[in-house]
Amino acid sequence: MEKWRAADRLLKFSSRFASGTKLTCTIINYDHTHPLVSECCFFPIPFYCCKSKQGKYFYSVATTVHRNPLFSIISPDDISYFKTLLGERGVVQDALALDAANTDWMGKYRGSSKLLLQPKNTEEVSQILKYCNSRCLAVVPQGGNTGLVGGSVPVFDEVIINVGLMRNILSFDKVSGVLVCEAGCILENLISFLDDEGFIMPLDLGAKGSCQIGGNVSTNAGGLRLLRYGSLHGSVLGLEAVLANGTVLDMLGTLRKDNTGYDLKHLFIGSEGSLGIVTKVSILTPPKLSSVNIAFLACEDYTSCQKLLLEAKKKLGGILSAFEFLDSDAMSLVLKHLDGVRNPLPPSIHNFYILIETTGSNETFDKENLEAFLLHSVESGLVANGVLAQDINQASSFWHIREGLPEALMKAGAVYKYDLSLPLEKMYDLVEEMRVQIGPAAKVVAYGHLGDGNLHLNISAPAYDDNILAKIEPFVYEWTSKNRGSISAEHGLGLMKAAKIHYSKSPETVQVMASIKKLLDPNGILNPYKVLPSSLLSQN
Amino acid sequence: MEKWRAADRLLKFSSRFASGTKLTCTIINYDHTHPLVSECCFFPIPFYCCKSKQGKYFYSVATTVHRNPLFSIISPDDISYFKTLLGERGVVQDALALDAANTDWMGKYRGSSKLLLQPKNTEEVSQILKYCNSRCLAVVPQGGNTGLVGGSVPVFDEVIINVGLMRNILSFDKVSGVLVCEAGCILENLISFLDDEGFIMPLDLGAKGSCQIGGNVSTNAGGLRLLRYGSLHGSVLGLEAVLANGTVLDMLGTLRKDNTGYDLKHLFIGSEGSLGIVTKVSILTPPKLSSVNIAFLACEDYTSCQKLLLEAKKKLGGILSAFEFLDSDAMSLVLKHLDGVRNPLPPSIHNFYILIETTGSNETFDKENLEAFLLHSVESGLVANGVLAQDINQASSFWHIREGLPEALMKAGAVYKYDLSLPLEKMYDLVEEMRVQIGPAAKVVAYGHLGDGNLHLNISAPAYDDNILAKIEPFVYEWTSKNRGSISAEHGLGLMKAAKIHYSKSPETVQVMASIKKLLDPNGILNPYKVLPSSLLSQN
Repeated sequence: MEKWRAADRLLKFSSRFASGTKLTCTIINYDHTHPLVSECCFFPIPFYCCKSKQGKYFYSVATTVHRNPLFSIISPDDISYFKTLLGERGVVQDALALDAANTDWMGKYRGSSKLLLQPKNTEEVSQILKYCNSRCLAVVPQGGNTGLVGGSVPVFDEVIINVGLMRNILSFDKVSGVLVCEAGCILENLISFLDDEGFIMPLDLGAKGSCQIGGNVSTNAGGLRLLRYGSLHGSVLGLEAVLANGTVLDMLGTLRKDNTGYDLKHLFIGSEGSLGIVTKVSILTPPKLSSVNIAFLACEDYTSCQKLLLEAKKKLGGILSAFEFLDSDAMSLVLKHLDGVRNPLPPSIHNFYILIETTGSNETFDKENLEAFLLHSVESGLVANGVLAQDINQASSFWHIREGLPEALMKAGAVYKYDLSLPLEKMYDLVEEMRVQIGPAAKVVAYGHLGDGNLHLNISAPAYDDNILAKIEPFVYEWTSKNRGSISAEHGLGLMKAAKIHYSKSPETVQVMASIKKLLDPNGILNPYKVLPSSLLSQN
Repeated sequence: MEKWRAADRLLKFSSRFASGTKLTCTIINYDHTHPLVSECCFFPIPFYCCKSKQGKYFYSVATTVHRNPLFSIISPDDISYFKTLLGERGVVQDALALDAANTDWMGKYRGSSKLLLQPKNTEEVSQILKYCNSRCLAVVPQGGNTGLVGGSVPVFDEVIINVGLMRNILSFDKVSGVLVCEAGCILENLISFLDDEGFIMPLDLGAKGSCQIGGNVSTNAGGLRLLRYGSLHGSVLGLEAVLANGTVLDMLGTLRKDNTGYDLKHLFIGSEGSLGIVTKVSILTPPKLSSVNIAFLACEDYTSCQKLLLEAKKKLGGILSAFEFLDSDAMSLVLKHLDGVRNPLPPSIHNFYILIETTGSNETFDKENLEAFLLHSVESGLVANGVLAQDINQASSFWHIREGLPEALMKAGAVYKYDLSLPLEKMYDLVEEMRVQIGPAAKVVAYGHLGDGNLHLNISAPAYDDNILAKIEPFVYEWTSKNRGSISAEHGLGLMKAAKIHYSKSPETVQVMASIKKLLDPNGILNPYKVLPSSLLSQN
């Protein structure tokens, strides 16, 4: 997973908008060595490209956001109410703590909230929301604040509600593998808890040390185990959520089968806190399996990569846990820029590389199974060359090639990054068309979770250049839209892409989303300015 | 899967309700040799038990349903409009055809619709609904009409819309396994199509020869492969649905990852056609695997059954495809009433039996894996005895014991049947409490999909008896509710259980469901009287 942090300062900006107008910018890449950047994220810089000496940060299409004048301003009476409700400790006004909660972990987005509330249970969340709704105080639900699209921080002065104190594991059933816990549980803590029980979480993320399960569910987090265990829409068996008016929806079932009415929990999975605050989660966890094997293979064309995936699903169906790919430009970049990385399949560079991981319960069987698969793949001509990791060090070195790509790209110069879902057969067409589109000015580097249809498209150039950007956008979004792809495979829309939803969803569908938002949150107090275009929600 | 058909006639009934009142009855079991029953399903027989000489049919708690007077009556002008829109062939008024479409396949529910429409494409569905909405004509979407809860037939004179002519496979991607097809495709045809491609559908049902994929999705059908491949909320990647006002929602994505806004498709999965008519489906299909192994085991207590399931998930995780259970009363019943069935683990009857099926890609590995698992299970004391099927005949004989249970129960006399989801650790408590509750008057027989937490609870008695029923209901529903179970594991609510939704869902959740129904279908024309209590929808 790439880590995007903030550029420290803007070299150029303009501020021609009226007071009360904010403008969000997409920082595509950045240098993190300077301390001042977060203040500038809302300056009005449409289509603005920032260049520093390091050439590491970049702002693409900007979006204007106006504070909704219907929202109230926090008053001393409000503070008194919350202190009575939550106690002094639950009402945070300390500048340092607020600064942290106002800023996303990339330092890319910064709000100006004056109040952070820390409820200890569902009833307190309910009372907070009931009060805020009656007062028309906007709120932003915040978990571990590890999101990448500005969904978890205030845009203006929204009240921050962090459920981090709600971190109890409520039950775990060793037979069914169903875990029920409060929304503030940190993912890594749940992973540790389950490890002792012989289970794993069905999702794993780079941010697991900070992110909370309520936030994971609210953003429908993808992560490293999706190929094997599917999305949270499949794993989450139930949840409890509090609506804007304080109504508690108890949908905390622990059943795999329940066909009694509309399955409303899915509305809250991935709606980024804009329909309700998730307070408890029930999740199906798989048993921990002991046998892990890794192979690194080379293919000469993309068609072979696709066929290999098909074969892997057939032959390794039950144990396949990762199917990652990178192209020759990606491999060259890693070999050039990452220390200590050697070509795993020397001497030449192949057109495509595939990393296959299997996770099963029987070391001998699984290894033989993977070996047989590799042998067959080589014999059938799908695979030009390949190697099976013989020990943990070799396995790590293979993963390091795939996981080191973001770092290699950073070292190579400027980079324009896109995280897309595309139909598998079309995926590499975009890469090739982008190469034609861009010409010799930049390198198009492709890698990603092929098994999930998730492409990380990177355009690597010596320096940021508006001419290059103009060749990429809106081409990349339009191409993705035309081919029924998704402009956000796993990060959500948040503030960053709220206005871009039409690239991936039909107008009628977006309209129904807006209707449901208005139905469940008529005053629009829950995480405003996010997920859906504000213009749509302000329509009568 | 048990097959419920209709009793032929009622021996007693009363009709003390005003014209326009219908009353639905739950036929718990039946004899299908007589031809007249379907007429009586709506007679007012609260808590009425029907006994014939065969003693096979039974009616439990009845529910009054009144025709919504706001709905229009079909006029000649309406017929003219539909003929212009669909052509003569698309407008069915033939008595014989209407009779079939008015009656569910059990013969348990019967409507009095005078009009069946057969659109050929989404645009026609849209035009039909737009017109019906403007005229306030109620409609019932109908697929293969194989539902078990009266969801797919009219209650009164609703216009029947059957999408059976929309049966094209639109695309299939061999690499991703994503199938896109029209809603009228019959499940068995899709299975055949995929078989040729080396894939399978992620669901399989007894009714596959008739049921349509649109109906499967609309009812969130469970079936035989849920343990392995999960529910349709995980498998369905996208769908197209038409709302009551004719708006077409294109949510027909083919992506595994797409976090752009609310995932609205889940509202249509399992809402039984009450929010929209599903017209196209995109579904992730798994590759067909060649190696199937079956074991039949005995356990001495329910705790061992649970532990065995846990071990099976760990040791057979990737290949486990079925984990069924039956208790000693179930086994005794099968041995007594089914011809040609022999005790697979002689000489004694054990307290519990488990059928384990694995499906994988490598015959040798998979068999050795299962053998090793069985050996370990016997050595550790979890399993008292067990046998691995040596050939297809032995495998079939094991499945026949599990699948023959409904037939054996029928032969044994009267039977009260309940299809419940319960938390695994509580599941058998209900069986034991029911035994105490019932006493010696009847036998409590338990079996089901232990791997899915799905219990088939059967109370077998010499004859139907109101005193027995009074001991079962509402006890069984209240117990299920108290233990956060589901009163409908996989069949949906339909007309049969619309008023019982509160046993499995909180009032607040049901209220939100009703709000969403009103939002998407303000006139309530889509499949009225089903899924949600009518009283709730008529509230202002």
